[in-house]
Amino acid sequence: MLLNSPAVERLVEAFRRLPGVGKRTAERYALHLLGAPVEDAAALSDAVRRAREAIRKCSVCRNLTEQDPCVVCADARRDHGVICVVEQPSGAMAIERGGSYRGVYHVLHGALSPLEGIGPDELEIASLFRRVASSKVHEIIAATNATAEGEATALYLARQAPAGVKVTRIAHGVPMGGGLEFTDQGTLAHAIDGRTAMS
Amino acid sequence: MLLNSPAVERLVEAFRRLPGVGKRTAERYALHLLGAPVEDAAALSDAVRRAREAIRKCSVCRNLTEQDPCVVCADARRDHGVICVVEQPSGAMAIERGGSYRGVYHVLHGALSPLEGIGPDELEIASLFRRVASSKVHEIIAATNATAEGEATALYLARQAPAGVKVTRIAHGVPMGGGLEFTDQGTLAHAIDGRTAMS
Repeated sequence: MLLNSPAVERLVEAFRRLPGVGKRTAERYALHLLGAPVEDAAALSDAVRRAREAIRKCSVCRNLTEQDPCVVCADARRDHGVICVVEQPSGAMAIERGGSYRGVYHVLHGALSPLEGIGPDELEIASLFRRVASSKVHEIIAATNATAEGEATALYLARQAPAGVKVTRIAHGVPMGGGLEFTDQGTLAHAIDGRTAMS
Repeated sequence: MLLNSPAVERLVEAFRRLPGVGKRTAERYALHLLGAPVEDAAALSDAVRRAREAIRKCSVCRNLTEQDPCVVCADARRDHGVICVVEQPSGAMAIERGGSYRGVYHVLHGALSPLEGIGPDELEIASLFRRVASSKVHEIIAATNATAEGEATALYLARQAPAGVKVTRIAHGVPMGGGLEFTDQGTLAHAIDGRTAMS
C-alpha cells in the first residue's frame, strides 16, 4: 500500500476514476501532490469542488454550463431550428472549435448500449424529443460517435424522432489531409459508399 | 475557454500542475468530473485535502509518511547503520518493492541543479549529515538518479560527507533481462567501466 496510508490509498483510488488513469499514473499524481506545497493540494481540492458546484446541465440542451441556459442556447443569432445531437459535452466542444456550425446542440450524455444496460431512458433523449415537439426544429443532426453504440443511437433517433423533423447523420470518410494508405478499411468502405457527385 | 467558465478554467489549470498532464488531458479530466455525479467530484476533492493533511515528512529520513517516524525508521530490525539516499519518495518506494534492502533511507526531495537554482540548502542534505553525525551510520549509498543532476548530487555527498562514513554509488549497467542490443551507449560504457571480477 502506497506509503502505508489509507488516506493516500483513497487519493490513488479517486485519481484512478479519471479517464485513462491507471494505478501507476494515479500513484504518480498522488506522490506529486503530497510532495508539493500544501497550497497546491488545497488549490486542486478547491478547484474540483468549486467547478463541480458551478457547473450544471443547461435546462435546454443538457450541455454542461455555468449559466442556464448556456451561451449557445441563449444566442439568438444561432439557428435554433437545427439541433446537433452529440454523446458528450466534449463532442459539442470539438464542433464549436471548428467555428462554422451555426445551429444548436443537444447532449445525450452517453449512447445506447444494451450490454451496459444503457437504454433510451438513461440518455437525454426524452428531453430532446420534448424540445423538438415544442419548438420549430426542422433538423436533427445525429453527431454521435462512429462506434457501434453511436450508430445504434443515431438509428434510434432517426426511427423515433417526432414526425416533421428530418434526421441526418454526419458524414464518415477519409479525414481531411489523410492519405488513403493511412485510412482503415471500415472508413474507406464508408467513404466509397458515401461518395457524392462532383459533376 | 472551456465551457466559458472561470471555475472550470481554474480546475483545468490545477490538473495541468500534475506531472505529465497537458492541456488536452486536463480538459478531459475536468469534463469527466463535471459530467460525473457530484459525489465523485466531492470524493476527489476530499481525498486530495485529507491525504495532504495526513501526510508529512518523517522527522528522521524526510520520506513522506502518515506516522512519524515512518515505518522504516521505526523498524528496529532494519540496519540503521546504512542509509540509502534517494531524490524522491518514489525512489525509496521502488527499492522497497524489491524487498531485499534492509537498511534505511534519506529522501533529498530533489537533486543539485545550478541551472534551476537548486543548491545543497534547497535539499535535505543538512538533515542527512546531522543524522550521520548523531548516530552510528557507517555507509551512505548514493541512489540518486543516473542523470547529470543525480551524478552531481552523488559526487557532492561523497565529497562533503562527515569523516568516517563510507559513501557508495549504486551500480549502473545493463538492466537484468536486458539485451545488449537494446541498451544505450552510455549505459554500455558504464557497464564495461564498472565490470566486476568473476574469478
